Amino acid sequence: MTPPPADPQDVDELGPVLVVGTGLIGASVGRALTSQGVRVHLRDLNPSNAMVAAGRGAGVLDEPSSCRIVVVATPPAAVAQTVAAALAEFPGAVVTDTASVKGAVVDELASMGVDARRYVGSHPMAGTQYAGPLTAVAELFVDRTWVVTPRAENSRDDVELVRRMARVTGARVVEMDTAEHDRAVAEVSHLPHLMSILTAANLRHAERPHLRLAGTGVRDVTRIARSQTGMWRQILSANRPAVRAQLEAVRADLDALLASLDDPDELEGFLEEGRRGAQAVSGKHGREVVTEAVIVQIPDAPGSLARLFADVEGIVINVEDLSVEHDPEREVGFLSIDVAPERADDLRAWMRSRGWGLRS
Amino acid sequence: MTPPPADPQDVDELGPVLVVGTGLIGASVGRALTSQGVRVHLRDLNPSNAMVAAGRGAGVLDEPSSCRIVVVATPPAAVAQTVAAALAEFPGAVVTDTASVKGAVVDELASMGVDARRYVGSHPMAGTQYAGPLTAVAELFVDRTWVVTPRAENSRDDVELVRRMARVTGARVVEMDTAEHDRAVAEVSHLPHLMSILTAANLRHAERPHLRLAGTGVRDVTRIARSQTGMWRQILSANRPAVRAQLEAVRADLDALLASLDDPDELEGFLEEGRRGAQAVSGKHGREVVTEAVIVQIPDAPGSLARLFADVEGIVINVEDLSVEHDPEREVGFLSIDVAPERADDLRAWMRSRGWGLRS
Repeated sequence: MTPPPADPQDVDELGPVLVVGTGLIGASVGRALTSQGVRVHLRDLNPSNAMVAAGRGAGVLDEPSSCRIVVVATPPAAVAQTVAAALAEFPGAVVTDTASVKGAVVDELASMGVDARRYVGSHPMAGTQYAGPLTAVAELFVDRTWVVTPRAENSRDDVELVRRMARVTGARVVEMDTAEHDRAVAEVSHLPHLMSILTAANLRHAERPHLRLAGTGVRDVTRIARSQTGMWRQILSANRPAVRAQLEAVRADLDALLASLDDPDELEGFLEEGRRGAQAVSGKHGREVVTEAVIVQIPDAPGSLARLFADVEGIVINVEDLSVEHDPEREVGFLSIDVAPERADDLRAWMRSRGWGLRS
Repeated sequence: MTPPPADPQDVDELGPVLVVGTGLIGASVGRALTSQGVRVHLRDLNPSNAMVAAGRGAGVLDEPSSCRIVVVATPPAAVAQTVAAALAEFPGAVVTDTASVKGAVVDELASMGVDARRYVGSHPMAGTQYAGPLTAVAELFVDRTWVVTPRAENSRDDVELVRRMARVTGARVVEMDTAEHDRAVAEVSHLPHLMSILTAANLRHAERPHLRLAGTGVRDVTRIARSQTGMWRQILSANRPAVRAQLEAVRADLDALLASLDDPDELEGFLEEGRRGAQAVSGKHGREVVTEAVIVQIPDAPGSLARLFADVEGIVINVEDLSVEHDPEREVGFLSIDVAPERADDLRAWMRSRGWGLRS
């Protein structure tokens, strides 16, 4: 699998690109760009990593004579140093990085006295619980958000070059201020990570046979807790103030939840609050899914239900949800088909043409 | 998809089965048993649900003249009443249920003064964030744990009949005392659910544009928070004491985590604790995966790496993990291939026969 073909104007003269650090993210950037025809060079402190990344199609191992973009994808704690070195080594290049916390990099560059005008921070919102070049895939960034965090001292051309590179991997670019980015990732990434950790760590109190009752729910919640702890130590430490604020907000909620446990209505109110939050991030791009229901009367005979389902599936419309409703007064049931509002009338016309009764 | 063929001795004279309540769980039990040749009757307070379940192959709608097993799969708050009614209506049947909390059912039956010797509690550890008969699937229970909670007053034959039914759906049966079951589900299911809710509810503080940064991590953690709140209100209320104990343990951990945020070593220790817990439930059946590493020298030329990977994939062994290692002193890299210990020697022999160098 590769990303969908990029806009040729984006690919044109994008490279050569040097990727420094060929773990999951760096090697995936390399594979994505290589698949679009961009020349990519690879470097890693651990030559075996770079060799495996090259063997997996992430780029070539020979040193670039020059490059337009350097992508620093090292572990978080090494990013600022590596950015500074790249700015010095390639005076004509734009240097970007993939670190999860942007303020810490900018602060460290400032404290080193580095002229960082050619450094444009960025952060692809992609990853897995795995690590290393073996798990790299070219399509890792497709339809993911890639945040670019320009600063006043950046030139607009340099920012645009980094945006182009992100688009070529298939990502959707969002621009955000450095501090705002760091607050946002504390909310949607670092706090969820720690909640996964807290849930998983709590299992230490359980007797071993109880773990046999673990189902898909606890596995979903604790999946990211399996991630490399060394990397997360660096990320969380770099974003401490924002992370602390999030944890304190959750502690207040936890106290409120404990207090509401004896009041089913209050408890359900809190469950609803959670449901709304979960739905708000459940869409492909964190968008809230807005749908319209098309409501079809369920035929009296179970046998004709198969024909009803076949007809629903017979029209090329993305069904967001299906549910059964019942009208006790009229003793009939309805099938509620949720689709995008702009497709609801098409679906209604189709179902009527196939002979089904709709509830107006 | 259907469950793998069941042991004919298990299927023999298992039915007729009456399923009362044809939501996701009831209709899936019906589909699983029907697919194995067991006769299943369906009932639901909402006739449209039962009709849709029947239309999806979960069973038939006509009333049974007699039945061997009644499976009560109604919403949790209605289980005890429905069990009592089924015991009275079918004096020759074993009555079981699928409720997530077993103590509450037993207590309610006792308070009603019901003779519950023919009631054998059970709880299939399966489900999704979806609801209703439309989302029912025959293979929902395959390789899942199905807990049976016998009590002293049950006859061994009745318990065995419920065990057989669970096995026929493809589930793995575990027996557990009622109170222990309720503690165990608080640990591995109810607490994780509330942690998912807390994480999702916390997103209400985030500005809308920040949600665009949501990736797969937060979506995994908050997936089960999208579940029906009405059902979870009933489950959590029925298991309050055990749930409260779990939440209090997490609050203590949260305070410790907040205190350790400035100490990277302490923080990483906590991340490690979480990682261990997550790994303990990450296996198919919550088992810890034990592996042995076979370590192959990575060839010098990236080109020959493709041949190395082809050879690893050329032997029919389940590879649990692959990682790259580096020996800085000898300037060489290694591919670490983790497999089940009993297959490690086979893999070593195979890799040697293909000409690869192993690290002893």
